[in-house]
Amino acid sequence: MNLPNALTYSHTLLSEVVGPGATVVDATVGQGHDTIFLANLVGKTGRVIGFDIQQAALDETQQQLQLTGLGQPVELHATGHEHVAEYLTADEPVTAAIFNLGYLPGGDKSVITRPETTLAAVKALLPHLPRGGRIILVVYAGHPGGATERNAVVDFCQALPQKTYQVLRYGFINQVHTPPFLLAIERR
Amino acid sequence: MNLPNALTYSHTLLSEVVGPGATVVDATVGQGHDTIFLANLVGKTGRVIGFDIQQAALDETQQQLQLTGLGQPVELHATGHEHVAEYLTADEPVTAAIFNLGYLPGGDKSVITRPETTLAAVKALLPHLPRGGRIILVVYAGHPGGATERNAVVDFCQALPQKTYQVLRYGFINQVHTPPFLLAIERR
Repeated sequence: MNLPNALTYSHTLLSEVVGPGATVVDATVGQGHDTIFLANLVGKTGRVIGFDIQQAALDETQQQLQLTGLGQPVELHATGHEHVAEYLTADEPVTAAIFNLGYLPGGDKSVITRPETTLAAVKALLPHLPRGGRIILVVYAGHPGGATERNAVVDFCQALPQKTYQVLRYGFINQVHTPPFLLAIERR
Repeated sequence: MNLPNALTYSHTLLSEVVGPGATVVDATVGQGHDTIFLANLVGKTGRVIGFDIQQAALDETQQQLQLTGLGQPVELHATGHEHVAEYLTADEPVTAAIFNLGYLPGGDKSVITRPETTLAAVKALLPHLPRGGRIILVVYAGHPGGATERNAVVDFCQALPQKTYQVLRYGFINQVHTPPFLLAIERR
């Protein structure tokens, strides 16, 4: 048993609240790890809404979903996550959403998540969170532009009203190479 | 399921690594909550070494241990935790240690943990940590002197060599009244 890193812990926090039939959002599909993890949790009766602006990433993920037989609950959208509300009905509860900020490993490192669109997506998701619902952000800050996004996201989270939300920060603090840390917004 | 606060999470992190027969340290006995929790984990064949400079706190804890039948593995010392090494043999492994920094709730608020003695105790414990062993600090910073201790402890932890240790920081970031956060030093 070792202390899990931010990425591993994000899956623990998702699995604690997401069950069969839930609607969830993968805001940054990338290589599809979270999409597949979420598809397993929600099962055939659930709904996983995935976003990525890189079509190639979505194509690869779609392939993996077909190979693993997990495609049914998943819809992938080649658009920015700031449009998430367009894919939800007005009062549709979203049990959890996951963001992996930064760039796609192995992809074009100039394509990065950006503070304006990241925060627009988070703000669009907040009204859909039921009590106990969670928005999880795995925050990378080591790349160009990363520190700006980190600061914007942390500032936003620190200002969320504590009567309605609690925001957890989880991460290792003695590592030289800016490891990712995790933010979890939970609706009370 | 709600995100646990620092105090609750400290017990999760202890229970993940402490089992029957282990030697553990409660560096700040106070009301004895951690002492009793640890005594349950290590059982009759384990060893819980507790420290508090306030004799009244130890007396109350001793009473509770007797009432609950958990006294056997516990030894309580009315001295500062910076003397912990004197109660350990040279190569005795300490699976876990817990510090609750600040003052004793309901006690004399001028009696607080202090950065010099807190860090002396942590430094004395580090050589006794086996692989996977954990030193956990629940850090309160809202009282006079608290911010100074918090800064000293965080600085110390950030400088621990990452090849030998990983240090987790866990806490809520959107609460107005300086809630405690947790630091967990784990030997790799």
